[in-house]
Amino acid sequence: MSLSAYKRKTLPKIEKALKECLQSQQFGLSQPLKEMLATHMGWRDDGEHGKRLRPLIALICTEALGGKVKTALPAALAVELLHNFSLIHDDIEDRSPTRHGRQTLWTRWGEAQAINAGDALFSIAQLSMLDLAEVTNPQVALKTAKIFNQTCFQLIRGQYLDIAFEKEENIDLESYLEMIHGKTAALISFSTAVGGWVTESKPSVIDLLEKYGESLGLAFQIQDDFLGIWGDPKITGKSIASDLLTKKKTLPVLFGLQNCDAFKDFWVEDEINADNVASLSSLLESCGAKEYVREKAKKYTADAFDALETLFPTKKPENEPAEALVELSGLLLHRNY
Amino acid sequence: MSLSAYKRKTLPKIEKALKECLQSQQFGLSQPLKEMLATHMGWRDDGEHGKRLRPLIALICTEALGGKVKTALPAALAVELLHNFSLIHDDIEDRSPTRHGRQTLWTRWGEAQAINAGDALFSIAQLSMLDLAEVTNPQVALKTAKIFNQTCFQLIRGQYLDIAFEKEENIDLESYLEMIHGKTAALISFSTAVGGWVTESKPSVIDLLEKYGESLGLAFQIQDDFLGIWGDPKITGKSIASDLLTKKKTLPVLFGLQNCDAFKDFWVEDEINADNVASLSSLLESCGAKEYVREKAKKYTADAFDALETLFPTKKPENEPAEALVELSGLLLHRNY
Repeated sequence: MSLSAYKRKTLPKIEKALKECLQSQQFGLSQPLKEMLATHMGWRDDGEHGKRLRPLIALICTEALGGKVKTALPAALAVELLHNFSLIHDDIEDRSPTRHGRQTLWTRWGEAQAINAGDALFSIAQLSMLDLAEVTNPQVALKTAKIFNQTCFQLIRGQYLDIAFEKEENIDLESYLEMIHGKTAALISFSTAVGGWVTESKPSVIDLLEKYGESLGLAFQIQDDFLGIWGDPKITGKSIASDLLTKKKTLPVLFGLQNCDAFKDFWVEDEINADNVASLSSLLESCGAKEYVREKAKKYTADAFDALETLFPTKKPENEPAEALVELSGLLLHRNY
Repeated sequence: MSLSAYKRKTLPKIEKALKECLQSQQFGLSQPLKEMLATHMGWRDDGEHGKRLRPLIALICTEALGGKVKTALPAALAVELLHNFSLIHDDIEDRSPTRHGRQTLWTRWGEAQAINAGDALFSIAQLSMLDLAEVTNPQVALKTAKIFNQTCFQLIRGQYLDIAFEKEENIDLESYLEMIHGKTAALISFSTAVGGWVTESKPSVIDLLEKYGESLGLAFQIQDDFLGIWGDPKITGKSIASDLLTKKKTLPVLFGLQNCDAFKDFWVEDEINADNVASLSSLLESCGAKEYVREKAKKYTADAFDALETLFPTKKPENEPAEALVELSGLLLHRNY
């Protein structure tokens, strides 16, 4: 099945179930809190929202392993709710004014209530995860809920490091990888593993699923870092070298700070603006940062596809969900936007 | 067994297990996050911390029902960790500068990292709760984890309402009760019920435990409201009618705003200071607020003791933990500090 056909079939189910999940909570007098959450999820106003990538991956992995959507749905929803909890709190922490073209919760309702809205979504995510017991069995539900909360903890640690790094001068590349592991890869890795947990697959299969998700997450983030500097503005829709203009400490910058004194002097001493940003990105390229980051992205991309091929060999009989998974991975990792 | 003997036996176990729980998490590069949590928990500097009342109650209830401490410990710890998660976020939301004589996390480490510290504690609380499966059985662990997260949600709703009420002119008394139910009573009610869940007691026993905890929490909070205005400054250690000076919308004030126009005019139009606060509290008393609040506190206190007597009849054979529970309830509800 093509990815677009798979999305047409599955995304409406995810959206409906997410809405029902919010609807089924008892808000009592706190109806405005419910409205805050519905707004964040994109169910009010213009209705723009995220791609629901994580629950989609969880469900495709489940079906690729022969499982049924309904046995994985509570866990898939929990992942999306947790992701959105972290976005609500990240927006406060990063002082982000907008998301999906809308005011963020904290800009519209204030920090205090936005903290509460995030917390509420965190507990709703937990409740959805525990619903897994009703569609699988107690052991699977308990095991998955435990790994889920270890993942929550890694996600929060990643966010902690991200904020901490803003003030640090020297961040080595290993530390940066630990940060993006927590902030991006851990939850994607959990999403892919959901398929293994609910189908009660062998540990070796779950290891491969986790490896696939982890590599997918890291490759995606590193490619994001690459495109933030060397992406084509016509395609990314951002200004040239936008991550340099905003002084984001992404992987190419960290490489440059460690391996290129001329870049470091520029970064520390000069103001970066539209006039000098192109020469700064050339400087970064000349000291090997572009090549280094491209190679890193390639390596994790290869790891992701290797794990996928071992899980679902292309020469084996047709596996439509696995084909959609390969297509999705290709789109995520070979993009230039 | 006297309450003090029970505390001597049990509080060190709780503290040790809480420390082990934090210690057993993998913080990786995020060691400063661990330090933030250890500081909040009172394990650094001067070492002042809360009374660990909730886990203590959970363990006494368990033993009073014939259960073992170790079967309830993961849930008791989860309750204390959840309580502390909510304190970390409340301190940010209320802009509280100190707690237990120390700087709050947000004043010392900034809001962003304090939000993350609270979130980390929330996920650690979940992990502790799920450890229940190792000392009870999967059904008990899943059921208790579900009720725990419903309680988390009620707690967050309570905090949402508390902040929302700051800006509202008219808060009816029922709304106020819903707020303190969420903010105070729900987690105490869960703590008392833990004993019932882990001992797999009959639903009627669990209902009574919840009734006892709920009434205890409401009575405690309402008495707090009473003492915030009519408490003896020599005993409370606060200034006369301190809640009036800080314009806290507690139960007596809400009663006054609804039932006493003279009080309402004063509250809305005048500045309250040390010179006029005594006459304002007299005004509140003359319109029946003191009597109303005293009666409310009495009613919930009676409800708590009634539930306790039904659960553990005093004429029955000796039940030492139940005696400690009666003593603890008496101390909490008949205090004048």
